[in-house]
Amino acid sequence: MRMHGTDPRLDDPPGFVGGTLDRVDQIRTNPVLLAETFADPAARRLVLDGLEPVEVDGALVLEPIEADAWVEDHVLLGVDPTGRPIFAELLVELTGGSGATPRSRGLAGQVSAQELALYGTARSLLHWHVRHRFCAVCGGRTAPVKAGWARKCGACQAEHFPRVDPVSIMLAEYEGKVLLGRQHAWPPGRYSALAGFIEPGETIEEAVARELFEEAGIRVHDVRYVMSQPWPFPSSLMIACIAQATGDALTLDATEIEDAFWCDADGVRAAMAGEPEAPFIAPPRMAVAWHLLDRWLAGVAPREPSA
Amino acid sequence: MRMHGTDPRLDDPPGFVGGTLDRVDQIRTNPVLLAETFADPAARRLVLDGLEPVEVDGALVLEPIEADAWVEDHVLLGVDPTGRPIFAELLVELTGGSGATPRSRGLAGQVSAQELALYGTARSLLHWHVRHRFCAVCGGRTAPVKAGWARKCGACQAEHFPRVDPVSIMLAEYEGKVLLGRQHAWPPGRYSALAGFIEPGETIEEAVARELFEEAGIRVHDVRYVMSQPWPFPSSLMIACIAQATGDALTLDATEIEDAFWCDADGVRAAMAGEPEAPFIAPPRMAVAWHLLDRWLAGVAPREPSA
Repeated sequence: MRMHGTDPRLDDPPGFVGGTLDRVDQIRTNPVLLAETFADPAARRLVLDGLEPVEVDGALVLEPIEADAWVEDHVLLGVDPTGRPIFAELLVELTGGSGATPRSRGLAGQVSAQELALYGTARSLLHWHVRHRFCAVCGGRTAPVKAGWARKCGACQAEHFPRVDPVSIMLAEYEGKVLLGRQHAWPPGRYSALAGFIEPGETIEEAVARELFEEAGIRVHDVRYVMSQPWPFPSSLMIACIAQATGDALTLDATEIEDAFWCDADGVRAAMAGEPEAPFIAPPRMAVAWHLLDRWLAGVAPREPSA
Repeated sequence: MRMHGTDPRLDDPPGFVGGTLDRVDQIRTNPVLLAETFADPAARRLVLDGLEPVEVDGALVLEPIEADAWVEDHVLLGVDPTGRPIFAELLVELTGGSGATPRSRGLAGQVSAQELALYGTARSLLHWHVRHRFCAVCGGRTAPVKAGWARKCGACQAEHFPRVDPVSIMLAEYEGKVLLGRQHAWPPGRYSALAGFIEPGETIEEAVARELFEEAGIRVHDVRYVMSQPWPFPSSLMIACIAQATGDALTLDATEIEDAFWCDADGVRAAMAGEPEAPFIAPPRMAVAWHLLDRWLAGVAPREPSA
């Protein structure tokens, strides 16, 4: 099975992958450089509506920094390939939850992969700031430092850094079929790879094995990493794997999984082609699960050359 | 290069890998089951000294649960292979920082891989509890819920979950050599793989490329995942990769890296064998960097059969 990093189909990455900003780590911790960067006439502010994207004519909206703006109220996302420093304003309020909305989900079909990645980074960071205005150590107020890449407590001086929550997302494979499941809240017919947060004290591979056993009663071996994706709802790192199951008898955890079944390559291919007779509705192309299924298909049954 | 999950040397894992506890997710959220589990005469409390391990005769110390103990003050680490529920007490105070101590580091040579993994899980969780007694959203007091696998704010009801911070740790490879670096605070002569936290909005592969460019001025392609390791100081998920460099000219970030050099397979082999003439002192065997170097050696230059 071919699953390595040089696969040419990585030119078509999952959503939020492929950012082109230089994150300019050296500027974040240098107040003089940061002030110069903020004052650069080329600097731009990513326009957002709360945490929601603002898109016009197929592009995110970037505006010049206002003359009366404060650098302390902004995060420096990075410098784009044309040399423009890109900031986002931290003074946002949360209006909804942390999950994907129709508007943020829809952005994938509207802007370039690079802009989608830029939005994802901004969304994760802003969500973290809004939810970390107080110090978890002492309850004091925190303020942004390091160009918005950390917060510091004014009382106990503890520093806090943005969360990235690793999630294992996986296909179990058995006799040419893969295990697909659905959660209660999903649209009718939608099935996808199982997934769960990686916990303290686990490897990626141990988390894959635990999740498959917890959710479906499946034991696996030979867990192989396939690819990863940042998922900004609010700040996951999706780590996609394929594992070999030791059997196909399912014991579902009804609180997590509404249903699950083993699907063969023809069924997966039909679902990904959107065929009405397909055995399930595939996850959207922006999801790493779509690409995981695509890579699995490429391994078990090479596709016909496209027309 | 062979770097897949069936490599028999995974029987000798890095430190903190290979835990054998069933994490019994279904008990955490069921108060009746949790109370029964806590009252189980077989239940044991992992004895710790603050966050430091307590080891006697090559084993961690596990004591019966005291009759007057409260389940609310404990985290349920899981159920061991003999059926004993294993708890740890949450009412600890931090005496030092979050880094490894000589005592916690030394545990690797004293107890089994399974017990080391159990200690690592407990240490990460307890450190998180001590540092999250207040709500980052509103500053209110939080209390443990879900058998110690979450905390909930008494004021705003926000739920908070233990952190796992993904870190990329990597070898860049160029013309049969790998890039090794050292930090200012390390023991003299010690060199290892470069590493850095994965940020919001990045894939694992993008983080590897960014870190190598930030710290050493190296551009890479074809980043390949090799293995992962939980590192409980305080709660990292080390994600080890090998990347192909496009050149070998180094530009070091002096704030992060004291020195770096390209080392050939003979030099790496000598260092890992502890030879006095070796060009550097290898990282300890409990570190994933040791295993990353070992896997790299196995790929580029198969070792002689051991005697």
